Amino acid sequence: MNVVSFRPTAEDLAYTFGGRPAVARIAPGTVLELFTEDCFGGRVRGPEDLPSKVCEFPFLNPVTGPFHVEGAEPGDTLALHFVSIEPARDWAVSTTFPHFGALTGTHTTAMLQPPLDEVVWMYDVDVEKRTVRYQARNSDFSVEMPLDPMHGTVGVAPAASEARMTITPDAHGGNMDTPELRAGVTVYLGVNVEGALFSIGDGHCRQGHGEVCGTAVEAAMNTVVAVELVKGVGTPWPRLEDDDHLMSTGSARPLEDAYRISQHDLVTWSAALTGLDELDAYQLVSQGGEAPVGNVCDTNYTMVAKLPKAYLGRPEVYESAHARLRALGAEYLSSR
Amino acid sequence: MNVVSFRPTAEDLAYTFGGRPAVARIAPGTVLELFTEDCFGGRVRGPEDLPSKVCEFPFLNPVTGPFHVEGAEPGDTLALHFVSIEPARDWAVSTTFPHFGALTGTHTTAMLQPPLDEVVWMYDVDVEKRTVRYQARNSDFSVEMPLDPMHGTVGVAPAASEARMTITPDAHGGNMDTPELRAGVTVYLGVNVEGALFSIGDGHCRQGHGEVCGTAVEAAMNTVVAVELVKGVGTPWPRLEDDDHLMSTGSARPLEDAYRISQHDLVTWSAALTGLDELDAYQLVSQGGEAPVGNVCDTNYTMVAKLPKAYLGRPEVYESAHARLRALGAEYLSSR
Amino acid sequence: MNVVSFRPTAEDLAYTFGGRPAVARIAPGTVLELFTEDCFGGRVRGPEDLPSKVCEFPFLNPVTGPFHVEGAEPGDTLALHFVSIEPARDWAVSTTFPHFGALTGTHTTAMLQPPLDEVVWMYDVDVEKRTVRYQARNSDFSVEMPLDPMHGTVGVAPAASEARMTITPDAHGGNMDTPELRAGVTVYLGVNVEGALFSIGDGHCRQGHGEVCGTAVEAAMNTVVAVELVKGVGTPWPRLEDDDHLMSTGSARPLEDAYRISQHDLVTWSAALTGLDELDAYQLVSQGGEAPVGNVCDTNYTMVAKLPKAYLGRPEVYESAHARLRALGAEYLSSR
Amino acid sequence: MNVVSFRPTAEDLAYTFGGRPAVARIAPGTVLELFTEDCFGGRVRGPEDLPSKVCEFPFLNPVTGPFHVEGAEPGDTLALHFVSIEPARDWAVSTTFPHFGALTGTHTTAMLQPPLDEVVWMYDVDVEKRTVRYQARNSDFSVEMPLDPMHGTVGVAPAASEARMTITPDAHGGNMDTPELRAGVTVYLGVNVEGALFSIGDGHCRQGHGEVCGTAVEAAMNTVVAVELVKGVGTPWPRLEDDDHLMSTGSARPLEDAYRISQHDLVTWSAALTGLDELDAYQLVSQGGEAPVGNVCDTNYTMVAKLPKAYLGRPEVYESAHARLRALGAEYLSSR
Repeated sequence: MNVVSFRPTAEDLAYTFGGRPAVARIAPGTVLELFTEDCFGGRVRGPEDLPSKVCEFPFLNPVTGPFHVEGAEPGDTLALHFVSIEPARDWAVSTTFPHFGALTGTHTTAMLQPPLDEVVWMYDVDVEKRTVRYQARNSDFSVEMPLDPMHGTVGVAPAASEARMTITPDAHGGNMDTPELRAGVTVYLGVNVEGALFSIGDGHCRQGHGEVCGTAVEAAMNTVVAVELVKGVGTPWPRLEDDDHLMSTGSARPLEDAYRISQHDLVTWSAALTGLDELDAYQLVSQGGEAPVGNVCDTNYTMVAKLPKAYLGRPEVYESAHARLRALGAEYLSSR
Repeated sequence: MNVVSFRPTAEDLAYTFGGRPAVARIAPGTVLELFTEDCFGGRVRGPEDLPSKVCEFPFLNPVTGPFHVEGAEPGDTLALHFVSIEPARDWAVSTTFPHFGALTGTHTTAMLQPPLDEVVWMYDVDVEKRTVRYQARNSDFSVEMPLDPMHGTVGVAPAASEARMTITPDAHGGNMDTPELRAGVTVYLGVNVEGALFSIGDGHCRQGHGEVCGTAVEAAMNTVVAVELVKGVGTPWPRLEDDDHLMSTGSARPLEDAYRISQHDLVTWSAALTGLDELDAYQLVSQGGEAPVGNVCDTNYTMVAKLPKAYLGRPEVYESAHARLRALGAEYLSSR
Repeated sequence: MNVVSFRPTAEDLAYTFGGRPAVARIAPGTVLELFTEDCFGGRVRGPEDLPSKVCEFPFLNPVTGPFHVEGAEPGDTLALHFVSIEPARDWAVSTTFPHFGALTGTHTTAMLQPPLDEVVWMYDVDVEKRTVRYQARNSDFSVEMPLDPMHGTVGVAPAASEARMTITPDAHGGNMDTPELRAGVTVYLGVNVEGALFSIGDGHCRQGHGEVCGTAVEAAMNTVVAVELVKGVGTPWPRLEDDDHLMSTGSARPLEDAYRISQHDLVTWSAALTGLDELDAYQLVSQGGEAPVGNVCDTNYTMVAKLPKAYLGRPEVYESAHARLRALGAEYLSSR
Repeated sequence: MNVVSFRPTAEDLAYTFGGRPAVARIAPGTVLELFTEDCFGGRVRGPEDLPSKVCEFPFLNPVTGPFHVEGAEPGDTLALHFVSIEPARDWAVSTTFPHFGALTGTHTTAMLQPPLDEVVWMYDVDVEKRTVRYQARNSDFSVEMPLDPMHGTVGVAPAASEARMTITPDAHGGNMDTPELRAGVTVYLGVNVEGALFSIGDGHCRQGHGEVCGTAVEAAMNTVVAVELVKGVGTPWPRLEDDDHLMSTGSARPLEDAYRISQHDLVTWSAALTGLDELDAYQLVSQGGEAPVGNVCDTNYTMVAKLPKAYLGRPEVYESAHARLRALGAEYLSSR
């Protein structure tokens, strides 16, 4: 098994997809062990560390990468299987942030009202119990919630020579902030540039649907990813696969367009996999599909369209990359 | 136990919330047995029955009601507990409809493209197996999906002397089309007029998230509802409660506003129930909340914000109406 | 000439389109002299008269009417020509209003931020000089702007047995809040119910594009309208005509849908008037059309699509109703 | 007078803002004579030249530049005064384009309907008569419209190390597609990178409001721009100034957010220029402001907020750069 470990220095951290050289080259079939910093670069460590004070725009939401995948060319699909995502510290953090979040005016939903107060919430992370603990700031109220680690940000270099801030989700992936992106899931990303140049970051110990206040239970992560390349097969928008579901994503504004993109991709993908015509697939997805909300706070909003594989007769997708990567991941885990 | 049965004649069917006299008066505490027609008025019974031919605008989405609840006044809250929702026939139906649905131009998202083909899909309903069977129109593909009955439409007469088509969801309820509205759930609706004047319709054997093609697995239903009145307690937008969750709804366009309304109501409601301040409640909902999509096809879109009661310490809500109505429903069911 | 005068009492004022009996019956060809109250019902008369204190929901935006037009039936078009719109008082008023306006959170664009301050601005109206005077509240700054009277609200009873608050614009007209609706303009409204049941209100001495703070320079008006009926010709969305332009309106959310509706109607209407195919008309409107913003603050937003008649070869529209009504109006004015 | 001429070769053409080295360095005070290609790179020259055939994504909407302005640093403002914009050929062209435009499904407003037909319209351009001639494709209908040359695209390198396709408008400028950007206007752009790196392209002989079909009357242009730098003064979103108006732009989705950004900037800018408090400025803009629509078809939509300088007492803005550049332009023109 080809295992590569990478822990970025401060200088290695990237704040865009595209526009940067690779930090490392890896071959398809590699198992990659990564450290990812939290979205604040690890600088918010207590209630007094207001992000607007300790962080400097645009140095937010650092990602680890980009990685050059040997042989990847435009028109291929990169398959990233998340073998494990584990909190790297025993604490995590969430905050409000001025003019950011779904229930406040923002730089684009521009309002004359003053911003909400900037507040920091620290969470205890218990990886044994698999919980995080919420503690109110203005009362004694406290409650445990399940640990459910995920990555908010994963993507490749965009098409058309673009470089995009890591806080933006779009067709290249990026800051989709969907809780569906957890261990056990394979993400498929269309390759736009030679080497694909993928990066990963923005670990969340858990996240509500839509990330309504703008941030999740943010944490540095130790993450293991198994990498494969599907040659000559394109992917228009990021797709996800777990053992029992196929998922399409869409990122846009307004939110109904994110919904439309994701559902449209799931319908046309389902039609292609089964031979159903598009209206028959539209009907099937209409009755059998789910629509997990990703984020309703970032520069584009993200929706996921999700369908049980069973409803499609469990078709082969992406040359069975998920099954192969899952086996590789299991082998890796059993070897530790 | 005060049990009232009502089966509407064709003349009894209502196509608006508001603007109509009550079909019956009932007392709080009543268990109401209802028949509801499907959204096509039962006129689409086979592949040749195109809705644009057999249905006449605005006679779509008929509801059963309105019912006058004795003693209900503006400022009160009506509690409707769905004891059971059972398909009244062994078939159900779904269709595309010209210029309706999320993946087509509509009368408001106006496009110059011709409409999608109008197609009817018939479903077999097996109440013993608890399944519905999808059958493709243009191939042999067929698959069973779980029966999960719900009502797309429930509401009261609107405020401000308005009357609204039953296809519109808004603060008075209406065509919210959320799969969360199934048996075992209590719906809370703010009373706007004397008697509340509630109606129920649009049964679905099941529905995907967002009702993307514009219709669900549409069916006539035999439905039992237990009714209570919470005096002097207002409700700004429809709320739902099941044994383990509190839910707020929002209906608006664009979809992010439906999300905002529902999350804002859940945040402020959670704060009121727990004594948390609003930002502490915002944080808690941000990490613990779900956001089930209702519809992304109706004249307003609907989102639901959902939180486990456990995260709030299982507070008492609406004077424990849900527990009481649930017990009344159980008594009713055991008496049949 | 058949001239009818109507000055409503407080009890006559209407707050909905639909759901009310007519205040008077008039014959096509009538010249109607009306008094309309301002959107606050005349109750905001100084800086201390905060609308949230002196006005009571839903008694906002009163309209004068509805008027029953003899012979009007569903499928006809009502033509209302605004002969004159003149301020009835020497003052006018504008305000912010909590959770209303484009640069603040609202009940649907729900935010946790507190509302903006509620402030009243009084305007001097000089009908001789044709000016209004803006006076800042927190400094000596003052400036004159041209008087440009218009009606924010005009409409008929909606289709489908609906009744809608007068603050809502939609296919029946209503609170479109477009400065294009000034004297010299004919408005075409599709008739939905017997008698059409039209009402008029919400006079503005002038209004910026979009009514960004939520209110214009609000004033009671003395208004003269010449009324005609175009039998057997439908109108899907309100249209306007002045001597040199045709205009279509659209009211919806998000704002691009209001734009789409209005442009779509102008394209298909232009095609019908000229015999151009739809894509040729699309191209012509794309290069020659204007898009005056109506409102970006009401429950639906309103856009206008506007094209010089000259670009279409000055086709006859609505059986030349505008020319006839304009002549009738001129006759009326010269007779005073 | 320092006059620099630049005519790009095919290799010089740029398809992004950011991510490219400068084609030339110029000093503040320079008058720059430019040739800009049309949005199709000059490859659509007749009805058979369908853009989807003769153009290759992402090589659309080429711009001339970027130009490095000596001394420009982040935090400064670049002032570009358009001295003249003249069609470089006696023809221009417009087209529909699959899945692009306001009245069709697009890649983000994803629909299952097939795309509209792709059609090319050729325009005769008469620079003497100052007209363009529309000719229908499917009939003899033809009409002249005024020549009103403008640039759809002008911008600088974006902040945060981003590179953006030239078809996207955002805070850095880009493809705003507003007819307000004509000769006689000064554009102010906040500088994000050393040298500012501005580019210009996408000439239109004229454009309707919103560019509803997705393209204007597209033409190569000979354009003269006078350049200045305002040191130490930032500009959050592109602003425009002509002799009588101040304008702010906003580019976002949905369209109401473009409106909000532009109006918010005009309100806060007006307050800063006059000493009015924000609510007083909000009121003044609400009654005196215009809102010309830019585009409702690009990846972000663009709105302009526009106010007569007279309503603000004709304040000095940007150290009177507009007056100075206007004088420099006049000097240049009189010297030819």
